[in-house]
Amino acid sequence: MIRGFSDAEFKARVTAAQACMAKAGLAALLLTAEPDFRYFTGFLTRFWESPSRPWFLVLPAMGAPLAVIPSIGAALMQSCRISDIRTWAAPDPEDDGVTLLAEALREVAGGGRVGVPSDRENYLRMPLADFDRVKAISGLSFTDDRGIVARLRQVKSEAEIAKISHICAIAGRAFARVSEIAGAGVALSQVFRDFQRLLLEEGADWVPYLAGGAGPDGYGDVISPASDAPLQAGDIMMLDTGAVRDGYFCDYDRNFAIGAAPDAAQNAHGQLMDAIAAGLEAAKPGARACDVWREMADIVGGGETAGRLGHGLGMQLTEGLSLTAWEQTVLQPGMVITLEPGIEISSGRIMVHEENIVIRAAGPDVLSPLADRNLQVL
Amino acid sequence: MIRGFSDAEFKARVTAAQACMAKAGLAALLLTAEPDFRYFTGFLTRFWESPSRPWFLVLPAMGAPLAVIPSIGAALMQSCRISDIRTWAAPDPEDDGVTLLAEALREVAGGGRVGVPSDRENYLRMPLADFDRVKAISGLSFTDDRGIVARLRQVKSEAEIAKISHICAIAGRAFARVSEIAGAGVALSQVFRDFQRLLLEEGADWVPYLAGGAGPDGYGDVISPASDAPLQAGDIMMLDTGAVRDGYFCDYDRNFAIGAAPDAAQNAHGQLMDAIAAGLEAAKPGARACDVWREMADIVGGGETAGRLGHGLGMQLTEGLSLTAWEQTVLQPGMVITLEPGIEISSGRIMVHEENIVIRAAGPDVLSPLADRNLQVL
Repeated sequence: MIRGFSDAEFKARVTAAQACMAKAGLAALLLTAEPDFRYFTGFLTRFWESPSRPWFLVLPAMGAPLAVIPSIGAALMQSCRISDIRTWAAPDPEDDGVTLLAEALREVAGGGRVGVPSDRENYLRMPLADFDRVKAISGLSFTDDRGIVARLRQVKSEAEIAKISHICAIAGRAFARVSEIAGAGVALSQVFRDFQRLLLEEGADWVPYLAGGAGPDGYGDVISPASDAPLQAGDIMMLDTGAVRDGYFCDYDRNFAIGAAPDAAQNAHGQLMDAIAAGLEAAKPGARACDVWREMADIVGGGETAGRLGHGLGMQLTEGLSLTAWEQTVLQPGMVITLEPGIEISSGRIMVHEENIVIRAAGPDVLSPLADRNLQVL
Repeated sequence: MIRGFSDAEFKARVTAAQACMAKAGLAALLLTAEPDFRYFTGFLTRFWESPSRPWFLVLPAMGAPLAVIPSIGAALMQSCRISDIRTWAAPDPEDDGVTLLAEALREVAGGGRVGVPSDRENYLRMPLADFDRVKAISGLSFTDDRGIVARLRQVKSEAEIAKISHICAIAGRAFARVSEIAGAGVALSQVFRDFQRLLLEEGADWVPYLAGGAGPDGYGDVISPASDAPLQAGDIMMLDTGAVRDGYFCDYDRNFAIGAAPDAAQNAHGQLMDAIAAGLEAAKPGARACDVWREMADIVGGGETAGRLGHGLGMQLTEGLSLTAWEQTVLQPGMVITLEPGIEISSGRIMVHEENIVIRAAGPDVLSPLADRNLQVL
């Protein structure tokens, strides 16, 4: 599979954003976060792991985006075919790109308003003190981006869907090999290490996310680090991965029974698969996210307290809509989401199952290889 | 090696911060970023990969920190022995922890000022719009944290140094096995995949960062993703990893010659090792970061344009001081830094070498196994 995207795809993304900006009366967008930056440029690097340098992308009302970046990124940015690249020797304790950015914004925005993604899931990846300086120097007025970038990113192109499908298949092959690495007597922390290895062997570029848990009657939560305690017969073990290929995530999990599948766990798993089936049935264009949530919540129980039973997926592990009681977003073809019902097996012990799907005109396609109803026994 | 830290260590960190807060006239600190949050609590999870939920830690002028967090994190936070945990069902589109946080701050800060890390390397990990709401609801005055948290984190405890030393040793064992995975005909992208596997096999918990490059006379930059083109005899290949064990990073690299080491590359490598030796000689308590930089810059050349030749290291891949011409920070025992000289072999082709060290009273200890002067040939 070819890496990256065509020039035409980036151009279409920019044009679509500019159409929304015109409606919203925004003269420019200022983007500082990795996925937003990459969405409009293809600038893909793990260097964002270092907090020492900020990166700025300015999207004008017309024409191509303009990059204001540390000089260490100039070569890679040139390969992204961005022609207007302004660099400084970062980090600079006196002026870490602030003046350069303020000038670029003034040049592009004239006296107009600059949109900055400021609402849910959006974080400004520049120091607050520097943002205040940019405001003061530019004299411009800054406002929320009205959700423009998030809304565009929510509906994936066929090329994006192919990338998510690819990493979902990679994770599927890794999940199919879990019997090689897990079983009674093996520490969950060792399984985590080995499962990341399997993901890499099967073609993941990197593994930004791996969570899970283990215990009788399921696990206590899904965010704790893996324990060094050995798995025991009767445990239920869950692995949930966000692996990446060419900048796009999968995000799904599998549950396994160690030694044998207890009835309570097998029943819970069956109920979760029923909830997935109901979610698949409901996830059609025109349905609201809360409609899909309702179908799954009715099966797993818990009513309004069932919480979030899925979410958008793409350049980030979680992005965009939430499958919750309150989310009114209407599903459209091209949206990629997870279905993630959870159930309490006994007090404080849960089981969660997750699949990845893309909304199509005729109904969803499942991108993760849909799990068997029966728990796999290791 | 035992995971985590003792209660006494967390208490000492909190007490040290509170002493600085008293001097700076701050009634509370508001922390939103993963490493700051973890520094005072031990809250370690990969769940931060998801942008869907903000997390807040409030450090009062006296007493224990207070966590205002999504309910999904309550169980893990309890295991961190934080007793005041206030949760909400996140994500909540109407009030994503905003009121809860504003009330906690008002309770803790009275009418005093709240410090928020706002300068270099610090990003507010909550939506700007929500921060504005917290300001409005709380009626409090917010200001920079005066670098308090960054300065504390800059000097590592023995327990922290042991963790960094541990991951450095893990990476050393992985680097010693590179001949198993790399050589002429192998794509650099495959080497990247396999080197992450080696790191995991040798004991890394995860691998947030891997960079590198390859080509005759070195590489064009150190941030681009790996190419699918096969390595060729005469290439110099570099691998630079930020692997993690128990929440602490290593960050160092190794250069290899494919087939045979060309003279120009061997000479460059020798010069880089000379620069490392000069850096080691200079990196004593009382020296400024710019003094260490000068010793290395004098050997690799480039003068003021030599850029950053090292940086602090710990809970983040890069943190704290920079080895640059302008950095006046004075080295103290317990600081962990990288020495990272680079050199241009031919126009636009560079070689970079990096080691990790801890400053001790008598001079630095090298945490990464110091590389041989001669390039290893694969």
